[in-house]
Amino acid sequence: MKEYIIHNEWKIIEEGFRPENNRISESIFSIGNGKMGQRANFEEKYSGDSLQGAYIAGIYYPDKTRVGWWKNGYPEYFAKIINSTNWIGINVLVNGQELDLGKAKIHSFRRELDMQHGLLSRSFEAELPNGNRVKVTSQRFVSIDDTEIGAIRYSVKALNFSGVITFSPYLNGDVMNEDSNYDEKFWVEVEREISKNEGYLTLETLKTKFQVTTGMYFQSFRNGTPAQEEIVNASHEKYVGATQKIEVAEGDEATIEKLAATVSSLNYKNTDLLQKAKAAVARAQKAGFDKLFEKHKTKWLQIWETSDIKIEDDTAAQQGIRYNIFQLNQTYTGEDERLNIGPKGFTGEKYGGVTYWDTEAYCLPFFLGTSSIEVSRHLLMYRHKHLQKAIENAEKLGFNCNAALYPMVTINGEECHNEWEITFEEIHRNGAIAYAIFNYINYTGDKEYLAPYGFEVLLAISRFWSQRVNWSEEKQKFVMLGVTGPNEYENNVNNNFHTNYMAVWTLKYTLEVIDYLKKDFPFLFDELLKKWKFNELSETTRWRKIIENMYFPFDAKRQLFLQQDGFTDKELIPVSKLSKKHRPINQKWSWDHILRSCYIKQADTLQSIFWFEDDFSMDQLKRHFDFYEPLTVHESSLSPCVHSILAAKIGYEKKSYEMYLRTARLDLDDYNNDTDDGLHITSMGGTWMSFVMGFGGMRVKNNRLTFNPFLPEKWGSWSFRIKFRGVHLEVTMQQKQFTIVNHSDQTASVEVWNQAETVKGNSKKEFKK
Amino acid sequence: MKEYIIHNEWKIIEEGFRPENNRISESIFSIGNGKMGQRANFEEKYSGDSLQGAYIAGIYYPDKTRVGWWKNGYPEYFAKIINSTNWIGINVLVNGQELDLGKAKIHSFRRELDMQHGLLSRSFEAELPNGNRVKVTSQRFVSIDDTEIGAIRYSVKALNFSGVITFSPYLNGDVMNEDSNYDEKFWVEVEREISKNEGYLTLETLKTKFQVTTGMYFQSFRNGTPAQEEIVNASHEKYVGATQKIEVAEGDEATIEKLAATVSSLNYKNTDLLQKAKAAVARAQKAGFDKLFEKHKTKWLQIWETSDIKIEDDTAAQQGIRYNIFQLNQTYTGEDERLNIGPKGFTGEKYGGVTYWDTEAYCLPFFLGTSSIEVSRHLLMYRHKHLQKAIENAEKLGFNCNAALYPMVTINGEECHNEWEITFEEIHRNGAIAYAIFNYINYTGDKEYLAPYGFEVLLAISRFWSQRVNWSEEKQKFVMLGVTGPNEYENNVNNNFHTNYMAVWTLKYTLEVIDYLKKDFPFLFDELLKKWKFNELSETTRWRKIIENMYFPFDAKRQLFLQQDGFTDKELIPVSKLSKKHRPINQKWSWDHILRSCYIKQADTLQSIFWFEDDFSMDQLKRHFDFYEPLTVHESSLSPCVHSILAAKIGYEKKSYEMYLRTARLDLDDYNNDTDDGLHITSMGGTWMSFVMGFGGMRVKNNRLTFNPFLPEKWGSWSFRIKFRGVHLEVTMQQKQFTIVNHSDQTASVEVWNQAETVKGNSKKEFKK
Repeated sequence: MKEYIIHNEWKIIEEGFRPENNRISESIFSIGNGKMGQRANFEEKYSGDSLQGAYIAGIYYPDKTRVGWWKNGYPEYFAKIINSTNWIGINVLVNGQELDLGKAKIHSFRRELDMQHGLLSRSFEAELPNGNRVKVTSQRFVSIDDTEIGAIRYSVKALNFSGVITFSPYLNGDVMNEDSNYDEKFWVEVEREISKNEGYLTLETLKTKFQVTTGMYFQSFRNGTPAQEEIVNASHEKYVGATQKIEVAEGDEATIEKLAATVSSLNYKNTDLLQKAKAAVARAQKAGFDKLFEKHKTKWLQIWETSDIKIEDDTAAQQGIRYNIFQLNQTYTGEDERLNIGPKGFTGEKYGGVTYWDTEAYCLPFFLGTSSIEVSRHLLMYRHKHLQKAIENAEKLGFNCNAALYPMVTINGEECHNEWEITFEEIHRNGAIAYAIFNYINYTGDKEYLAPYGFEVLLAISRFWSQRVNWSEEKQKFVMLGVTGPNEYENNVNNNFHTNYMAVWTLKYTLEVIDYLKKDFPFLFDELLKKWKFNELSETTRWRKIIENMYFPFDAKRQLFLQQDGFTDKELIPVSKLSKKHRPINQKWSWDHILRSCYIKQADTLQSIFWFEDDFSMDQLKRHFDFYEPLTVHESSLSPCVHSILAAKIGYEKKSYEMYLRTARLDLDDYNNDTDDGLHITSMGGTWMSFVMGFGGMRVKNNRLTFNPFLPEKWGSWSFRIKFRGVHLEVTMQQKQFTIVNHSDQTASVEVWNQAETVKGNSKKEFKK
Repeated sequence: MKEYIIHNEWKIIEEGFRPENNRISESIFSIGNGKMGQRANFEEKYSGDSLQGAYIAGIYYPDKTRVGWWKNGYPEYFAKIINSTNWIGINVLVNGQELDLGKAKIHSFRRELDMQHGLLSRSFEAELPNGNRVKVTSQRFVSIDDTEIGAIRYSVKALNFSGVITFSPYLNGDVMNEDSNYDEKFWVEVEREISKNEGYLTLETLKTKFQVTTGMYFQSFRNGTPAQEEIVNASHEKYVGATQKIEVAEGDEATIEKLAATVSSLNYKNTDLLQKAKAAVARAQKAGFDKLFEKHKTKWLQIWETSDIKIEDDTAAQQGIRYNIFQLNQTYTGEDERLNIGPKGFTGEKYGGVTYWDTEAYCLPFFLGTSSIEVSRHLLMYRHKHLQKAIENAEKLGFNCNAALYPMVTINGEECHNEWEITFEEIHRNGAIAYAIFNYINYTGDKEYLAPYGFEVLLAISRFWSQRVNWSEEKQKFVMLGVTGPNEYENNVNNNFHTNYMAVWTLKYTLEVIDYLKKDFPFLFDELLKKWKFNELSETTRWRKIIENMYFPFDAKRQLFLQQDGFTDKELIPVSKLSKKHRPINQKWSWDHILRSCYIKQADTLQSIFWFEDDFSMDQLKRHFDFYEPLTVHESSLSPCVHSILAAKIGYEKKSYEMYLRTARLDLDDYNNDTDDGLHITSMGGTWMSFVMGFGGMRVKNNRLTFNPFLPEKWGSWSFRIKFRGVHLEVTMQQKQFTIVNHSDQTASVEVWNQAETVKGNSKKEFKK
């Protein structure tokens, strides 16, 4: 844990340079626009420790699998969103000496990320070994308005000398991934051109043959006036650059504005790429840094209008929640159904920038609540597009008849992960993908999504469950053997409650969907029946048998569903009794020790109770929470949110707040000592859920929003914005009062503290606790 | 499966060259002397597919671990016995053109391994691209008499030309392991010298700093007369060589005898190595090929005197069993307690030449029955020497108070393996190491081994079991969670019957040993008590509680011990009902599919019943065999032997024979399509057990050998030699008669078909069935 980020309501601020934290800050100050992302690497050369990272959504490389011991069924590769052409680079010489914060004496240093406007700034004063002192200021953004464009303004002021400031802006595609399995470089050059202050580099990925053209245009200034000095170009493999020597007198400031464009074969034909890059560079050049920023800023303000959360009397909490919202919006904007949300977004190499069940379980609710319906629908369509691959994935594992197992980790629908206990066994993810369909429809009311998209996915997943269970002669029940639940601190267990529950729920929901389709879309259903060779009678008969006869491990004495068979054979010692020297157990204990302990990584049985809360009484919820939470070490960043929401529901307000705090500033305070690898983007969705569903007690029931809000003790008030079926609400919780402001024209039907209410368009209503 | 080896009682013969099988033959025709081993690579250059392998016992490299996903507790490296200096190489030019079977036209080809005398021969006629035809004959052995020496005689006859045969014998240390994790070379040069027909190369391993000096001496002949042609030397990094051009007329034969010596820092000081190598070369040179071979042959004949098995009327079976005995003796001779038996011996890279529980479970009985007591004792001392490392290994996994967990895979006592489900969980190996102490004492009567060696190991293992179990409130029993049994087709199961049984047995046996030590060695025991801080009362009290209250999964309906908790939740479909297209399941099914199936890789519950047969009635044995064997796919080469022995005991003679056949010619017929990787050396110990304990029904009970023999239908008779406590017996089974010849002076007390008998020294006794 580190706490060097300065608290501020809208800004992330670092004062003073800490080389040992540089990778952490590079993650924290990352910028992105849903199409590309850039770690907060320095523009000028830096010889110290750094993880270079420029990522382009959808551009991946299938890095050949490297494992110690191969297991049959392992995927051939791990697909990774890869480090791409460095477009931010500007080498700087001061009187011929390289500016490098790894070698200079640093007198002041400040980084600032303005979340409201989406701008990264940096300023420092440094003394070079030659004694020259400079003051540097830089600003950078990747436009959320014109997503092909990134812009930099970089100034060097001569503080104690006259002479020459040399700028060498460049594009460099000779980059690596640190996590390359075979120390390979993934890019080869296609073409390059450079002419004075404009250059282009086109590269192609090995194997996947994606092409990316990066363009740059720059303009230098002396004290605001365009510099006329000669520009000399340089070019070699995977590199184009230019050098301009600006003469300065003491007190002068040399500035360079570098505008870059990134276009790829994901959106254009290879043959058009150069021309498209040139067009983008021309657009950027025409607008210039300031106008580009103006439009970018406007878009950010629009985003905040519908997604801001305010907290009174707690700057750290205010900064934390806004940071989460900011990063989620930087990662995914929902315009392109081929894209998704990586656990680390575009902020590092870890997890390869590829898709996990995190999207459905922890991110979808945020986008449902703050964005247009298309955004969430695209997240669902992403999986629909991968249906055939999910069917093939199941076939590889011995399933048939178009049963689908969605991958644990994927970018193109194919499985990437290679730990058998997760890849093959953490199959509850299939349930999360089915649940997302329900969740989406429940929130948006868009039932038509079921025909054909939703239904096709549900059918294939139901078929998987139907084949995955087996009849136990011993138990005279259906059982599900050899799975890993959401609690990855158990592997290859039998009858994981959550997985069994997801299976039964999927079958039930699919049956409901079939009834609906037969009633509302009989022709289409008939088509689907043929298309998928769906033998309705025999298949649904088996499904019903499974629904009626599924086994759930149950402890009669405690009146508890057990996480899996044999759970109560463990020594049940609460986490609070576990000496601190043993924690986190995933760093202190060998894997077998963790596995045979009772400790839970993240919500597992409670995950089902959270998702299907109407199936469980408050007594049951409380009993399960009281049993499982004390055994939970929350060593997944995805753990506290579910617990926070359930604690709020039970009325454990302090617990709810405590759990919320564990993720709210996870990255800002480097809580788990791993922010250097990148940000926990998907966990940020969980934090949002904690707030809205926990403190706000918000649910969708019977086609309306319901609220059971409370105010954590330390806060003066909180408020959040929420979109729901055309209505845009701002809800505020104060000490004893809950207020709903309806910013739309339409009347909103809501439930507050279990009372049905309406709030007319463009009006406000107050509710006393 | 391939069946190209020609059947012969004493020889392994290959006729005709099959490049596609070359790696298989290189394994099959391997030679070794317990100190070094050499695959049957060609002396002359070969451009075709080949796995070069020259291995020196005890000389290893710790190859840095490479895994996909690191788990806490994984070892840093995998120690490997590594490919070492190529000492067999003799490049051959025929009129300036390289002799290379990859490029020549081959008119005849024969390889032959004479097992009785330990000699590898090869002969072929080949036509080079230049039209020259040669007949080549070669002979090779690594001396089992003077284990530092290997010898080659290599002749080339000019069939259709006159001209020059060029011999270039060399030593080449610039070798690789194909399985190098980081494509590293493991050797660096220390020094080299070459002078005419004598050369030396000293290399050192990276990290472990082992030094090995290899020396060579050679002498060329023309038609048996020493050749006088000039010798030209060559030398570069890691290489010394010489070239001699022999002029030949058509019909002449040029011969080279190359004698090589290998000495290492395992046995000598680094500074003495060169001198020791020179002394060995001088010994070899003085004796010459023929005398060296004479002594080597004599030793082999002595080995056969006490270990031969004869089978009448079945040449394939005769060849198979002798091959197993031959290879076991080539791999381990028991003179050096620092050495052990790798699953592939010195015949390939797989499994790194390092030690598994195979040694204790499958190889020890062979050496007990055919070698002197020291040989087996050294196998035990190997583990005793590693006790401190086993304690450290347990500490890494969270155990304390000198509890020991012996590694799954090791060369120096440290764990090498890195699959969590095996490394951390396949802990029954600890039981096998304890059982080996019992087995050794039971066989040899050498009870004094217990003080202090055996006891120290047993105490540390008992302490491990005592900590590894936990009390289940649910079951009101001790349980053992999260283990992998011998059946590796189940991972992370609870209450594996075999593991629980080994735990309880170890505790019981250690208590017995304590009673014995207190009675017979009270002073020593007192010392040990202090040395190991053994709190006898409290520790043994807990042990007794565990012994009395251990949980064993039991199926009351079937009256069966279950392999583990939940086993009967599986679909129990016998292997015979499984379509052939699904087999072997480890190649056809993904790992999760295997895990949730009922199929068993090798004896698991039956392993305990085999080892502790007196604890189970014949009814129980039969019931368990009838339940488990039909579910067993025998996809471990270590599986059939235990089943063969148990089947024999039950009276399932056909089944016993069928199981025996599955391993008897495993490598000769490349039964599992993996002999190219090396031979299944440890499984050969299992085959010997099948024969002696299965067909011979041999056990040690009450300090004497007992026999319950039977004759497989197809055979005229069988006989085997056995050593037991100073007695040397030859037992023969014919149709209705069992004969014991006592080759020693001492009277042998035996039991035949449950009748106590004596056989006087140097006499013969017949028993009718």
